[in-house]
Amino acid sequence: MEKELAFDVAEYRQRLDRVRARMRVEGLDVLVTHTPENILYLSGYQTPGYYMYQCLVVPLEAEPVLILRRGELGNFLRFCYLEDAITYVDIQNPADLTAKTLANRGFAKARIGVELGSWFLTPKHYLTLQAALGNASLVDATGTIERCRLIKSPKEVEYIRQAARAAEAAMQAAIDAIHVGVTDNVVVAELHRALFNAGSEYVALGPFVAAGYKSTIMHGNWSRKRIERGESIILEIGGCVQRYNAGLMRTVSVGKPSDRLQHMAKASEEANRAAYEAIKPGATSGDVHRACQAVFEKAGLIELRRANRSGYSIGLAFPPDWGEGHILSLQENDPTVLEPGMVFHIPSAVREYGVYGASFSETVLVTPTGRELLTNFERALFVRE
Amino acid sequence: MEKELAFDVAEYRQRLDRVRARMRVEGLDVLVTHTPENILYLSGYQTPGYYMYQCLVVPLEAEPVLILRRGELGNFLRFCYLEDAITYVDIQNPADLTAKTLANRGFAKARIGVELGSWFLTPKHYLTLQAALGNASLVDATGTIERCRLIKSPKEVEYIRQAARAAEAAMQAAIDAIHVGVTDNVVVAELHRALFNAGSEYVALGPFVAAGYKSTIMHGNWSRKRIERGESIILEIGGCVQRYNAGLMRTVSVGKPSDRLQHMAKASEEANRAAYEAIKPGATSGDVHRACQAVFEKAGLIELRRANRSGYSIGLAFPPDWGEGHILSLQENDPTVLEPGMVFHIPSAVREYGVYGASFSETVLVTPTGRELLTNFERALFVRE
Repeated sequence: MEKELAFDVAEYRQRLDRVRARMRVEGLDVLVTHTPENILYLSGYQTPGYYMYQCLVVPLEAEPVLILRRGELGNFLRFCYLEDAITYVDIQNPADLTAKTLANRGFAKARIGVELGSWFLTPKHYLTLQAALGNASLVDATGTIERCRLIKSPKEVEYIRQAARAAEAAMQAAIDAIHVGVTDNVVVAELHRALFNAGSEYVALGPFVAAGYKSTIMHGNWSRKRIERGESIILEIGGCVQRYNAGLMRTVSVGKPSDRLQHMAKASEEANRAAYEAIKPGATSGDVHRACQAVFEKAGLIELRRANRSGYSIGLAFPPDWGEGHILSLQENDPTVLEPGMVFHIPSAVREYGVYGASFSETVLVTPTGRELLTNFERALFVRE
Repeated sequence: MEKELAFDVAEYRQRLDRVRARMRVEGLDVLVTHTPENILYLSGYQTPGYYMYQCLVVPLEAEPVLILRRGELGNFLRFCYLEDAITYVDIQNPADLTAKTLANRGFAKARIGVELGSWFLTPKHYLTLQAALGNASLVDATGTIERCRLIKSPKEVEYIRQAARAAEAAMQAAIDAIHVGVTDNVVVAELHRALFNAGSEYVALGPFVAAGYKSTIMHGNWSRKRIERGESIILEIGGCVQRYNAGLMRTVSVGKPSDRLQHMAKASEEANRAAYEAIKPGATSGDVHRACQAVFEKAGLIELRRANRSGYSIGLAFPPDWGEGHILSLQENDPTVLEPGMVFHIPSAVREYGVYGASFSETVLVTPTGRELLTNFERALFVRE
């Protein structure tokens, strides 16, 4: 059976080179990544079964080796350009196997990078590694690979563009499905139908259809609730292609919007525009956040802004989060300088608990001269009856 | 804004009583859970934003307190019956806040249960807790709450039944959408539309539409692939209501099935039946696994069974896994005795790499006298043109 790779092997090799350059700076002999996105980034390997232990061992010199559940071998054969894999059966302790593999390959006394901030390395498995590799030095390498993921290649941007097309199709279908008296589930049904017909894979988060009081709660979502006149609805939709994600948010008023909702939606739209217009090479993360917050401040809505950030890097993701906010968030006092090739999702939500919620967002590419919106959808407060 | 609880407060209180009884046995003064399902189980609190740090502190004597991201406060007010919450902003270290909270409440020198096997407690946060609580004794409490979740209450079973109805509707829509020449995305689009119209929430895993070579790979899934005559398709679909999940698998032949595919599908169906017929109070986990494997053995297909288990507990779940396999899997030599109120998903997949895949599954309740299938869908190898 032939390989199915999202990128040329050369691109995977370049990524490996960049990671190894960082490993040299950090003095690592070998790096063990337990983060599904990092494993995919470096090897092409992916499975929805990442809830079982898996890791990629990346030596500074030798070829990487994948450690995975035996049942997942088919995904290795199909999606991974590497040739070396070691499998475990469910009754084995896979962290023990990882430690043995490291020892067998000459890393018993090495300086080993391990991602202490990775969800899918549990403290239990970490302690197993530590105990079994008593003569090695385990150092935190959280972010070592992630930092290489910040700047997207043209091919990566192309996948995000395709994901954006799916998100836009789903947004239109969701808006069209909103009527007084239908349930939020009906809206979600049409949204998903359009999303997948437009080519999306399973998404990493959401989508969110937050109607009425749910629009006033961060991450509020559908639950067989009837849509009523007078409600605000926040729609937040991600498309996903080759695990690259694009996010898009819009707001709907069910029936004629009140002055208050119009004010909130206008502020959100303007704050969002201020945020993306602040995105350019040389601007800092904090600059973008300030530009966004200033609009809410001026509109007298800053107290309703519960977010501590105005956006976050977006790219490769598996559930439960589509963002790369742990890599880079656009937030207060963050001096990180934006560079061409970075991609951000910038949600500008404002929520008045129990009253209204409104939000606009775009997925934005930093270009050599400024920025480009990768999402493309009318920026209006939509009204549905 | 009124509370929205999936269960009476009395049921949450009973759960807390059961957990505290176990805490006494384990000698814990306080238990800190970082597992989203455990937090939901004990407090009613839930958010899709569990990718940010959150935990529930459960003292043996005093009321529990939730530690969560400030932006999520609305979800606390709406979904949590408890009254005590402490919030952090994104730039804070939330594990430090947890340690301080424990110290402030008299647990600086206590015996503190922490779930070392929980995905959402990273090694980094665990090490922070350990360092900040140097005079306390941190002990592993992985599974303490989970064991209480194994036996479902009548109300919990009712939610799983509702989830099963959604999975069945989605299964029918998926089968109906399969035709030679359409893409797997089209099938997935109709599947989701039916799933959500039938009341499902966002699912914890999948669904899986694995056509052709993808049906021969565990967790193979859709990706804009054309469906061709002669392919096998494995459909695996979960419905989700109040975060309770039910799983259902069936197999489709595109065009007249070959003898080989018929043989594999027949073996899967019979093995699956043998598995669920072995489920009854007093049977062991290992009994069910042996009953299932014996059928594949007899059919000469045991070499193609890559699974090391014949099923797993299912119930509350957030992505990325719908199962409770880490609590109880039906596997070789496992002496765990089945009890009424347990619920299992039993997938009986058989895959010949690059050739065919076939699978049947049901979601099964252990009753006082035997078992009841909570999923209800024709058990056939479906043929579509």
